[in-house]
Amino acid sequence: MFRDRLRNEKLWDRIVTADEAALLITDGMTVGMSGFTRAGEAKAVPLALAERARRDPLRITLMTGASLGHNLDRTLVEAHAVARRLPFQSDPVMRGAINVGEVMFIDQHLSETVETLRSGQLAPVDVAVIEATAITEDGSIVPTTSVGNSASFAILAPKVIVEINLSQPEALEGLHDIYIPTKRPSREAIPVVAPDSRIGVPFIPIPAEKIAAIVVTQSSDSASTVEPPDAETGAIAGHLTEFLLNEVRRGRLTERLQPLQAGIGTIANAVLHGFTETPFHDLTMYSEVLQDSTFELIDVGKLNFASGSSMTLSTEKHRSVLSEIEHYKQRLVLRPQEISNHPEVIRRLGIIAINTALELDIYGNVNSTHVGGTHMMNGIGGSGDFARNAYMSIFVTKSLAKDGAISRVVPMVSHVDHTEHDVDILVTEIGLADLRGLAPRERAEVIISNCVHPSYREVLKDYYQRALLRGGHTPHLIEEALGWHDNLRRTGRMLSQRLSHF
Amino acid sequence: MFRDRLRNEKLWDRIVTADEAALLITDGMTVGMSGFTRAGEAKAVPLALAERARRDPLRITLMTGASLGHNLDRTLVEAHAVARRLPFQSDPVMRGAINVGEVMFIDQHLSETVETLRSGQLAPVDVAVIEATAITEDGSIVPTTSVGNSASFAILAPKVIVEINLSQPEALEGLHDIYIPTKRPSREAIPVVAPDSRIGVPFIPIPAEKIAAIVVTQSSDSASTVEPPDAETGAIAGHLTEFLLNEVRRGRLTERLQPLQAGIGTIANAVLHGFTETPFHDLTMYSEVLQDSTFELIDVGKLNFASGSSMTLSTEKHRSVLSEIEHYKQRLVLRPQEISNHPEVIRRLGIIAINTALELDIYGNVNSTHVGGTHMMNGIGGSGDFARNAYMSIFVTKSLAKDGAISRVVPMVSHVDHTEHDVDILVTEIGLADLRGLAPRERAEVIISNCVHPSYREVLKDYYQRALLRGGHTPHLIEEALGWHDNLRRTGRMLSQRLSHF
Repeated sequence: MFRDRLRNEKLWDRIVTADEAALLITDGMTVGMSGFTRAGEAKAVPLALAERARRDPLRITLMTGASLGHNLDRTLVEAHAVARRLPFQSDPVMRGAINVGEVMFIDQHLSETVETLRSGQLAPVDVAVIEATAITEDGSIVPTTSVGNSASFAILAPKVIVEINLSQPEALEGLHDIYIPTKRPSREAIPVVAPDSRIGVPFIPIPAEKIAAIVVTQSSDSASTVEPPDAETGAIAGHLTEFLLNEVRRGRLTERLQPLQAGIGTIANAVLHGFTETPFHDLTMYSEVLQDSTFELIDVGKLNFASGSSMTLSTEKHRSVLSEIEHYKQRLVLRPQEISNHPEVIRRLGIIAINTALELDIYGNVNSTHVGGTHMMNGIGGSGDFARNAYMSIFVTKSLAKDGAISRVVPMVSHVDHTEHDVDILVTEIGLADLRGLAPRERAEVIISNCVHPSYREVLKDYYQRALLRGGHTPHLIEEALGWHDNLRRTGRMLSQRLSHF
Repeated sequence: MFRDRLRNEKLWDRIVTADEAALLITDGMTVGMSGFTRAGEAKAVPLALAERARRDPLRITLMTGASLGHNLDRTLVEAHAVARRLPFQSDPVMRGAINVGEVMFIDQHLSETVETLRSGQLAPVDVAVIEATAITEDGSIVPTTSVGNSASFAILAPKVIVEINLSQPEALEGLHDIYIPTKRPSREAIPVVAPDSRIGVPFIPIPAEKIAAIVVTQSSDSASTVEPPDAETGAIAGHLTEFLLNEVRRGRLTERLQPLQAGIGTIANAVLHGFTETPFHDLTMYSEVLQDSTFELIDVGKLNFASGSSMTLSTEKHRSVLSEIEHYKQRLVLRPQEISNHPEVIRRLGIIAINTALELDIYGNVNSTHVGGTHMMNGIGGSGDFARNAYMSIFVTKSLAKDGAISRVVPMVSHVDHTEHDVDILVTEIGLADLRGLAPRERAEVIISNCVHPSYREVLKDYYQRALLRGGHTPHLIEEALGWHDNLRRTGRMLSQRLSHF
């Protein structure tokens, strides 16, 4: 049976232990690893590398698709093995190292990493470490539950380490669609014209000679950390559904909507989950990560097809989806993140993009990454790729955090990831603000009325009224604009208890 | 000879005065006018409309390609005829009306306006007013010195007013390439694969019946307001040339570079002008506005082909280029701004994008629009379309303004148009910062060392050092971050004279 997993006999003698494979990685190297939203990461070699680094210090540049499961970021950081990290992470220990300046983190749009690598604008990848379902007769790699940047890492690196993961079902083969843009100056259009377009091959084509080591593993992907829907995420889903139904009534959309994208996380997942109860039908997704809600929508017959770069599922969903992957495969495709997130394709298809905001301001600017304007949370991920080029760019968040000590709607965001030009619709559990075609002063009125928690509404209204007296296209009291963040830093609350219940 | 300008005899009886044509526009309408960077705007009907509005009040939504010449924005605003304005302007009186809240200004990425119109997400255009070189046998419109949004305005509006401008040479016919993306869900790839790709037709195809009025005019375009290169813009061009030569030496670029984009304005124009003295050759442009420098580069044999959406020239250049337009035409194409600025094409071609910053911060975030974080200057224009999708995104600015009262490099920008994710290279007359692959703390070091004027460098270094003590991925003293802007507001200087010479 293992012959089906490793079909090139000449490669049998490349099978080594994880420790041996890890020896190919040395101090100062740039390593490109598979893994996107805790799915399909190489699971053994990074741990062996961390183990070695504890005895024999080394530091690498670690590039991935996006976040890694199995506490790999944490383990590598605790071994002080990471000097630079890109383009995304979501690990508390890695985050801590980034925020004290131990790890240099390059927070990139997920569609751009391999583009900058390919043009030599980032240091080249020395070794790629890729999880595989199988290696084909000619040495090509069949990925597992994510594609991420694996294809370009393997193609660009002089040496490739492959982890064949026996716990990943063989039936994953055929799920992937690997396409690499042609070289400039004769680059052609990317031929995706619908979510179900297949434009490439179902494996990563590399010459067998580049495979320097093969490691056999068997641990399954980590479970998604997404929390179940609650009353507030339910209310957010309700407001958004109501709004989209209105768009249908006005003839701007049909009940098939437009291809959907939903960012990773509890709120976006809950919003999509909410669509199971709506009249929308024959939906499609063109997204980066496919979460539990994708499969719920397929199961209830609402979703016809989903394109992504990874599948990140709860333990229960993981079991049911992977055991029936043949059934789902005809409705799914996994692509390189360069293609799932490509501006060209997103603009062409006309995506409805739903992403989560960390905070937003009265003019509709969105902070997705920086707590208090300074401390990195996870990274911008693909939210910019989608928000900029979407048919409609929606950001969702709960109106409060930390039991009301924090308002997610502030006078001025302390860090900007998405400018007001790229934000069409804002939704909190309080309500929805439709900002399309509005000037900043109009945006402020509707955001304050519709999205802010009542305990902050009057104070925010007061800020805006006083700012108006100073005039401007985007009125602000520049000396107070970040005052709520400074209060939070000093007192643990954005406003004193008295003020926030004005 | 006029028969060549108006080739459909049935349309002869639509010729009216500007006053008569303007009667088609009534209070509350949305009017889509031609005009992009003071080129090719309808010149008579807007003035007649303003004249009428002074007697008989009316207010419209005014959409254009970009900025208008002939003080049209000013005249319309002084007549209180503009309620809403999009997607760009550059007129001091219009700007004033926006900043006091009299005119609601929607500041959009220039590629997006007609996309949102077409999908019904903006109120529909009631009347289009388009300047033409000629009207063909079947009623199609040959544009003049700009295309902008004219094609989509004319196609989407139920009524079209055409101004045939006899001062625009007939030889402009054939210069334009009009292509409108196909309808979703079966939208196809936009087939531009090189700056000189011609993918459409040389006229705006509309049925003759839609032409409701024709006005004959003869004033030429307003001259460009771009100032000649000076020592500082020369230094900026020098730093950038040196950097690009280095990229060539490292094998990342050839001496043909990549297709160039340069934003409108004195500095970007001067930078391109500086390329006349370099070893670069066989250059191409894929830009939005073609300025004097474009034609200087053609004249010295450096530039093979330029694609744009308009030509905005000094009085002298205007005369020489338009009188020899047959000569230049083989090296030029003017496209709809949706295509000149399309993310799909920009990413495909791999543009080197050069745009002007109003201010930038130590982490490489860029403000292009808001003075003091509140007051609109012109608008984001196409800078976001290019910066986000470019092969390399460069922002240029002088390090100081107002005789040193303002540093263009600040601790935190007071408004963000381009996030650090979209900014690769910063250049001032002091030097160049190459930010590619750098984390924020590394970006701060290189920006402070290379780009800041010496009179602000130590104070900025001091800010950064104190911010570092608080930690974070992007260290800031949140209570001081906008302090320079507050000083400026209160005292007219960002720092006291003493401090800025620390």
